[in-house]
Order: sequence, then C-alpha cells, then structure tokens
Amino acid sequence: MSDQKDKFRETDDEARALACRLLSEARYGALGVLVDDAPFVTRVALQPGDGHLVTLVSDLAPHTDALRESPDASLMIGNPGRGDPLAHPRMTLQVSARFIEKTPEAARTYLATQPKAQLYIGFADFHLVRLDPAEIWLNGGFGKAYRLAPGDLRPG
Amino acid sequence: MSDQKDKFRETDDEARALACRLLSEARYGALGVLVDDAPFVTRVALQPGDGHLVTLVSDLAPHTDALRESPDASLMIGNPGRGDPLAHPRMTLQVSARFIEKTPEAARTYLATQPKAQLYIGFADFHLVRLDPAEIWLNGGFGKAYRLAPGDLRPG
Repeated sequence: MSDQKDKFRETDDEARALACRLLSEARYGALGVLVDDAPFVTRVALQPGDGHLVTLVSDLAPHTDALRESPDASLMIGNPGRGDPLAHPRMTLQVSARFIEKTPEAARTYLATQPKAQLYIGFADFHLVRLDPAEIWLNGGFGKAYRLAPGDLRPG
Repeated sequence: MSDQKDKFRETDDEARALACRLLSEARYGALGVLVDDAPFVTRVALQPGDGHLVTLVSDLAPHTDALRESPDASLMIGNPGRGDPLAHPRMTLQVSARFIEKTPEAARTYLATQPKAQLYIGFADFHLVRLDPAEIWLNGGFGKAYRLAPGDLRPG
C-alpha cells in the first residue's frame, strides 16, 4: 500500500502520546489471525508492556492454534465512547506473536492487570503470548491517520 | 477445525436469543480483512439488518480496497463491560462483503442507526457494504461457545 502515503499525517508528539496512551490503557483487543487462510477476529484480554502487549490464551480458543501456525497477527485496541464510533481513536498493530514461558513473575505481571485471570492462569491449557508490534496504524478520528514505528510506542 | 466439535455446546434457544441480541445491538465492530495475505483488523460502524449487517466505508480506509479484492472477512461484535473482558459475550461472524448501491432508502436506513454519518455519507468516496454471515462463532463467556447457522440470526 505504498500509494497510500498521502493518506497519512506526519507523525508528531501528539500522535505518539495518543498511541502510548492507547497501548497503556489496553485491557482487551480484537485479534485477527488466519484460519484456513481467511481472517478470523476474536477478543483477547491484554496486559500492556513496554512497547508490546501480553495476552493469555486457551487451547480451546480458535486463535491459539492459529497463532502457533502463523504468528503474524493483527491487534486493534482503543474503545469507542458515545456518538459516532469512528470519531474515537483506535490503533491497529501488526504484531508478531511468541508463546512465552508462564514463569511466576510473568504470571504475577499479567495478573496485576487482569486480576480475574487468577481463576485460570494456572491451567495447563492456558498460555502467555507476547505480541510485538511490527507495523502501527493509528487512527485518531476522521482525517487523523498516522503510521508509527515500534519505537514510537516507547516514551522517553 | 473439524476436531473442535466437542469444544462447542449444542445450540439452544438461549444461544440464539443472545446471538440475535448481539446482532441487533451492534453499532460498531472489529473487521478483519486480508492485506498482503496477512490479517488486518480495523473498526467499522454498523447498521444491523435482518440477519446481516451494513457498514459504510471510505476509500481512505485500508479495509475498503481489501474487501474489494477479497470479500471474505471476519467481524467481531459485542462489547465488554467491567471486570474480566473474556466474561462478556461476543460473536465472530465470518462474512461475505458486497458493495451495495447507496440509494436514498439505503442511506436513510443506515442513518437511522448512525445519525452522525449524515456528515459524510453523501461523499463519493464513501460506500455502503453489506456483510452477510456465512459462519457464526458465539462466545457467551467461559465454557459457553457455540457454532450457529445464518438462519439462527433471524428470529421467528
């Protein structure tokens, strides 16, 4: 989509701040994976990290096998409030998914954001998956589209 | 995913009622399309119809060209409230997308659900797209997964 360059504004501090806010506030998102070569969208719970996100997935969920087979996924975060749903900011992250070890520290960190997951995080068929953004599409509302780089999600 | 049959409950009236409610209350959703053979998720505004949905898309949005090239898409609807985001019902519809004529009647019907779209529905680069479900994955919360048929979304 190289012909779409003029559809995007130049990334500025305001866009970076919005992207960092959307990332840090994300508690859930819409995950797009490939199932039988077609897109398939499900809800996942999220724990924001430093420029990345972590989710906890079950072997019962269709996205889990899909991520094992094809780790390139898409994650949309940012929730609409009232009025036109398209007027509210959201961000699509093209991510690479990696199953990580469910160490006590990783579990504690996840539970700090998702305390209700205490009920099932210990089950053997639940897995922590780290989602690292490769491409970032920020939409701050009408006419406010940006492409960001992974480094833009790490403030400072 | 034929080996996943035992992961699903038998569809009953309660599941059908929940699915119909999620459809009728949908004002926006997460649309998964294929961009460069990878999944790509964006937000779309929605107008619920009789067993289907209609959205209004802009030529500026990456999903619009993607739907033209590959009309098999995925749409997740249903919004979390407080607490564990995975405890709230949501539904993934594997849909077929079809660009439909923006007749005055179709525009009026869309605007009855999305009044703020009055500002831009008339623009030549905005298009109505009908999304017809082919496969339906309902998740009513933990342990409450169902597969439904398109006919289950038409009550009566």
